[in-house]
Amino acid sequence: MKMKALGAAVAFTLSAAGTAAWAQQVRDEPIKPIQPYVSSNPAKVELGKKLWFEPRLSMSGIISCNTCHNLSRGGTDNLKTSIGHGWKAGPVNAPTVLNSSLALAQFWDGRAANLVEQAGGPIQADIEMNMPHALALDVLQSIPGYVAEFKAVYGSDRITIGMVTGAIAEFEETLVTPNSRFDQWLQGDDKALSAKELAGYTLFRDSGCVACHNGPAAGGTSFQRMGLVEPYQSTSPVEGRSAVTGVDADRFNFKVPTLRNVEMTYPYFHDGEAATLEEAVDIMGRLQLGRTYSKDEVDSIVAFLKTLTGDQPQIALPILPPSSNATPRPNPFQ
Amino acid sequence: MKMKALGAAVAFTLSAAGTAAWAQQVRDEPIKPIQPYVSSNPAKVELGKKLWFEPRLSMSGIISCNTCHNLSRGGTDNLKTSIGHGWKAGPVNAPTVLNSSLALAQFWDGRAANLVEQAGGPIQADIEMNMPHALALDVLQSIPGYVAEFKAVYGSDRITIGMVTGAIAEFEETLVTPNSRFDQWLQGDDKALSAKELAGYTLFRDSGCVACHNGPAAGGTSFQRMGLVEPYQSTSPVEGRSAVTGVDADRFNFKVPTLRNVEMTYPYFHDGEAATLEEAVDIMGRLQLGRTYSKDEVDSIVAFLKTLTGDQPQIALPILPPSSNATPRPNPFQ
Repeated sequence: MKMKALGAAVAFTLSAAGTAAWAQQVRDEPIKPIQPYVSSNPAKVELGKKLWFEPRLSMSGIISCNTCHNLSRGGTDNLKTSIGHGWKAGPVNAPTVLNSSLALAQFWDGRAANLVEQAGGPIQADIEMNMPHALALDVLQSIPGYVAEFKAVYGSDRITIGMVTGAIAEFEETLVTPNSRFDQWLQGDDKALSAKELAGYTLFRDSGCVACHNGPAAGGTSFQRMGLVEPYQSTSPVEGRSAVTGVDADRFNFKVPTLRNVEMTYPYFHDGEAATLEEAVDIMGRLQLGRTYSKDEVDSIVAFLKTLTGDQPQIALPILPPSSNATPRPNPFQ
Repeated sequence: MKMKALGAAVAFTLSAAGTAAWAQQVRDEPIKPIQPYVSSNPAKVELGKKLWFEPRLSMSGIISCNTCHNLSRGGTDNLKTSIGHGWKAGPVNAPTVLNSSLALAQFWDGRAANLVEQAGGPIQADIEMNMPHALALDVLQSIPGYVAEFKAVYGSDRITIGMVTGAIAEFEETLVTPNSRFDQWLQGDDKALSAKELAGYTLFRDSGCVACHNGPAAGGTSFQRMGLVEPYQSTSPVEGRSAVTGVDADRFNFKVPTLRNVEMTYPYFHDGEAATLEEAVDIMGRLQLGRTYSKDEVDSIVAFLKTLTGDQPQIALPILPPSSNATPRPNPFQ
């Protein structure tokens, strides 16, 4: 955990003049503060950032990771379900990339163990970027700027898909959002939350939401059934975790989504059917806890949830190296 | 021209330790150096930048100005013709936004007199963003973060389309690319170009390319017929300037594109049919000048053209304010 410790040290210096003292959690709550992340390999992060914004990893030449996980928008596309190659609609709501490194697994059904495993999926999925890995590698290998940068990071002239996903994952590790008002409160700043927000958090905690929404990401620590007390009504054909385990008992089990930056990551649920936070809180209360929150209770929980918006990653837009004459051209209508 | 003078002064200070002295053009050539641009209204630029990256200005919620004029890629999408709402293909190659403020008019056919007039077009074009202006304004007006920012910039609670396009245009004014190696040479640095690059420029100039590709943008100063000596063969139905003037003599007249950053803005021509710079130079020589360049000549002109890549705008990715519960939701399949 050397890197984490370094991150904390840097942040402590930065906030020394402020009200919060990073990484010194004063309050012992089921939600933990987000720690800043400092990579030990900035060149790899920079390469990963280029690949993150790289539309040439798609068959059409216009879809990048950032299309559906937009870092201007809380790491999501704010659609019910995403639009991919050929204007096809995806089956699930795009989860935020922010703080995704803190989750126990990736994708709603957890079918990828980590960010490296995850990153290869959307590139080749026909309804997302629709790009065979072999062709993606041919594209990158034909671009002198990329060849030089992969060489500098990995020491090899031959780019592999593992290098691509490894660099993207290293960039994604940096996409954490510390310093939310809730974290400031966790770290001892009594004035960081209003009375209403604090009441909302207390209700959230004491009525049992934290059974699933816990840890630094306020989620992402377990798979849970959507519709525990009452069944969830949805036209979505997606069945969640059972697609990975093959176990019938896992039907409609999904990874608990993070609530960090939830004000920015609308709409909600795996099918994106809850348009507002109020709607999401109401449905969660009834379906997961068997509890009908009053309008005032919903409002106070929503007020609390909005305190989970942290410092958004500051991204300098990368300049992508131009294709060479040998670069395979995009094919939007393939 | 106070702002230009200020820009020059700032740049002069910045480059005092370097080899180039901004705005002191030593060589009198038909192509002029690009001057840095310093806005007198940074808040308006910042608002315009948000709107530039704002997918909620599209019906689908996923297309922004930056989708087709990608600032990571020389201000283009590097497609033959762009893909818009519903995966529809546009009729022409997306021109670069970089240095577009230097052109005599906007769009390939010059149908917009300036950047403000231009900015409204793609928002409502059904094959681009497909968003009626009235609905775009309803969206912005429903977002508290935007209401506050428009108020700060324009002093009004009521957002108008003129405010939207005005802010986008102000941001676009900043998207100039000074300090290319060719500009360094223009400004007196003899070592900025190799012998081959200089020979390429001399050939480019003396064989007549500068008749059209002149001024600071190396283009954008006139409309010219595509296929002057020999007709241009194309399956594109686009006829250019005559669509604006109604004058038959203007058929196949197009605004001369800028050659700034041309290494990054492939493919070339209004229909994007020239995949490489070599192909474009060969075709231009034959069709516009009646001259067949040898392979060596093409290579030296291409070497010169690559010296026109300037400093790309450094963009801090904006964080977009979240929608409110009242914000009209995107509709990708409308």
